[in-house]
Amino acid sequence: VFAIALTLLVLEIHVPDLSSGARLGPVLHEIRPSFIAFLISFVVIAISWTSHRDLFALIRRTDRALVWLNIIYMFPLSMLPFGAALISRYNREPAAVHIYGLILIAIAVTRLAIWRYATARPHLLVAPIDQQSRRAGYVVVLVPAVAYIIGFAIAEWVPRVSLAVFAMVPVLYFLSTTIARSSAKPGAVERDFT
Amino acid sequence: VFAIALTLLVLEIHVPDLSSGARLGPVLHEIRPSFIAFLISFVVIAISWTSHRDLFALIRRTDRALVWLNIIYMFPLSMLPFGAALISRYNREPAAVHIYGLILIAIAVTRLAIWRYATARPHLLVAPIDQQSRRAGYVVVLVPAVAYIIGFAIAEWVPRVSLAVFAMVPVLYFLSTTIARSSAKPGAVERDFT
Amino acid sequence: VFAIALTLLVLEIHVPDLSSGARLGPVLHEIRPSFIAFLISFVVIAISWTSHRDLFALIRRTDRALVWLNIIYMFPLSMLPFGAALISRYNREPAAVHIYGLILIAIAVTRLAIWRYATARPHLLVAPIDQQSRRAGYVVVLVPAVAYIIGFAIAEWVPRVSLAVFAMVPVLYFLSTTIARSSAKPGAVERDFT
Amino acid sequence: VFAIALTLLVLEIHVPDLSSGARLGPVLHEIRPSFIAFLISFVVIAISWTSHRDLFALIRRTDRALVWLNIIYMFPLSMLPFGAALISRYNREPAAVHIYGLILIAIAVTRLAIWRYATARPHLLVAPIDQQSRRAGYVVVLVPAVAYIIGFAIAEWVPRVSLAVFAMVPVLYFLSTTIARSSAKPGAVERDFT
Repeated sequence: VFAIALTLLVLEIHVPDLSSGARLGPVLHEIRPSFIAFLISFVVIAISWTSHRDLFALIRRTDRALVWLNIIYMFPLSMLPFGAALISRYNREPAAVHIYGLILIAIAVTRLAIWRYATARPHLLVAPIDQQSRRAGYVVVLVPAVAYIIGFAIAEWVPRVSLAVFAMVPVLYFLSTTIARSSAKPGAVERDFT
Repeated sequence: VFAIALTLLVLEIHVPDLSSGARLGPVLHEIRPSFIAFLISFVVIAISWTSHRDLFALIRRTDRALVWLNIIYMFPLSMLPFGAALISRYNREPAAVHIYGLILIAIAVTRLAIWRYATARPHLLVAPIDQQSRRAGYVVVLVPAVAYIIGFAIAEWVPRVSLAVFAMVPVLYFLSTTIARSSAKPGAVERDFT
Repeated sequence: VFAIALTLLVLEIHVPDLSSGARLGPVLHEIRPSFIAFLISFVVIAISWTSHRDLFALIRRTDRALVWLNIIYMFPLSMLPFGAALISRYNREPAAVHIYGLILIAIAVTRLAIWRYATARPHLLVAPIDQQSRRAGYVVVLVPAVAYIIGFAIAEWVPRVSLAVFAMVPVLYFLSTTIARSSAKPGAVERDFT
Repeated sequence: VFAIALTLLVLEIHVPDLSSGARLGPVLHEIRPSFIAFLISFVVIAISWTSHRDLFALIRRTDRALVWLNIIYMFPLSMLPFGAALISRYNREPAAVHIYGLILIAIAVTRLAIWRYATARPHLLVAPIDQQSRRAGYVVVLVPAVAYIIGFAIAEWVPRVSLAVFAMVPVLYFLSTTIARSSAKPGAVERDFT
């Protein structure tokens, strides 16, 4: 699903109308909103993918609830190409940024729910997880979630700042993951966060 | 195929035309039919996926007929994005709901055929399956099948009620699976139905 | 690639324009050409998939040429959704049927080349393959190839008969596979043809 | 991702408008630009795929940077269907060829970065790689990279020659891989380059 959603995103970058002799600069400028929407969504899916892998490296077996939590997680993920299409066409419209923000928040919230559910059940895990590692996993998901909520909240007035916030989240995620890795005790699971 | 069909569904949610300054409420209202079609179809594919996994957890090897039954099963599944596109545009038209209903019925009928075929051939199974488990497997597929047939039959007069019936099927499926799990003897295969 | 091409086919069934109160019959009639194109192409990909599995069940390791033959095989396969779109819109036009026929012939020819290459190299195979089995493998691919060539040749005058021929090929394939299975010596590889 | 991008390409070959009684020749002529764009992009993805397999056959484990390098590699790859759509519609426009060339250069550069990173870290590899093999791996990626840069540079004046250069790259790649294979010492990794 990750790979497919990642690749489907490109279908939303529409081929611009080129007048004969158009120069590269203006053409690039024309596809910029599509490209930014593509880029943000690509990174969101990439992070969802790597953090999903990080989680499932810890999991030994699944149960019914975990399977369904995963399916619920796929739901906003598979809506992301639609959200990308929306903000690629209406990048100044609060309503479009709101819908995109809702999809991002839903992704973060379901990821949080999966982490919470799985790490609380040692029989599903390869090895029990200690409290500090569990907290690190929360922080790494909560930081994006809070940023998405802020982006959503300010979209009414400054939709383009919201997009900038959404675009910054991967940097925050990267930083928080790096901090989680380096401040972890030797052997702790967050050492292997991607 | 499941993952791909799941992700292709989103292509049928068309980006609405936003007039400048459109508010979130009316926009959400405009994409509602698409979203409902997406949601119903997403859940249908998700259930097909989990029940397929449940079945293949019991199967040790396939034979020629089982491979072809699986391919026949993929046929209505891969038509589902078309059906979703149809009811997302014509959610009040009986003809559209009829076609969508036919696809759903075809999915349920082929799933029934696979269950019937596989569970009757112990040499294909990891372990022979007892009669009660086999019946539980039937019930879990027949309940949606009957609901889909009812939804199809009433589409002529009340197409939107049909859609409500289709949307209710996952709840029925969830309930019947839960009952099958809890009423099963220890060690019976339906204990692991998702 | 098989699964993706299979699922992409559906994108070529366009949602018809439904006037209010349209009845199921005329609507089904309207989507018939799309549906037939979808059905034929679906079966072509399904057969390519199963026969590919049959072949690779015999293969122990690949070499450079086999990898590239496989990629060449993917080429006409991945063009099939385009061919399906073409005959779904122009099912009476010889040019459309010609292009579709060319794609089908290319699939059969590359499949033949893979069979010829792989079965002549015992070091690539799980076990050496005897001459009768090899011939059976040829027949099973040559029968469709000849039928596709006939369909292509007559498209100029009777394009719809060509489509009927293309639609009949799976039946021929099924028959020739069944004959190959039943006339095989015990333990021969064609016993496991799907 | 490779398989999906490969198959999505076909969505960019648009069904031409056939007037009644159109002959095969003119129709083929009309879809030629789309077909060439499809063909070039198909081969680019196929080569990326095989060379990715060649690399990962050498790799024993990944680390964080390698995972992210891979994701960065997927970025231009997943943009290729967009580039193909662009040059299929505007095959004489320098701006379109420039964008397509940029995507190709980005693919080659990230592939180079992955090779450089992975082969310098013996703990990630199945077996340490000697200097000659490492150089062979560079050459095999640098040859296409240089050709793409040349194609990009001349697109301003002769966009169709650029496309011819892009189309020739697979031949160069094939030749350089064949030379790398045949000039390698017995047991060297480039013996198994595809």
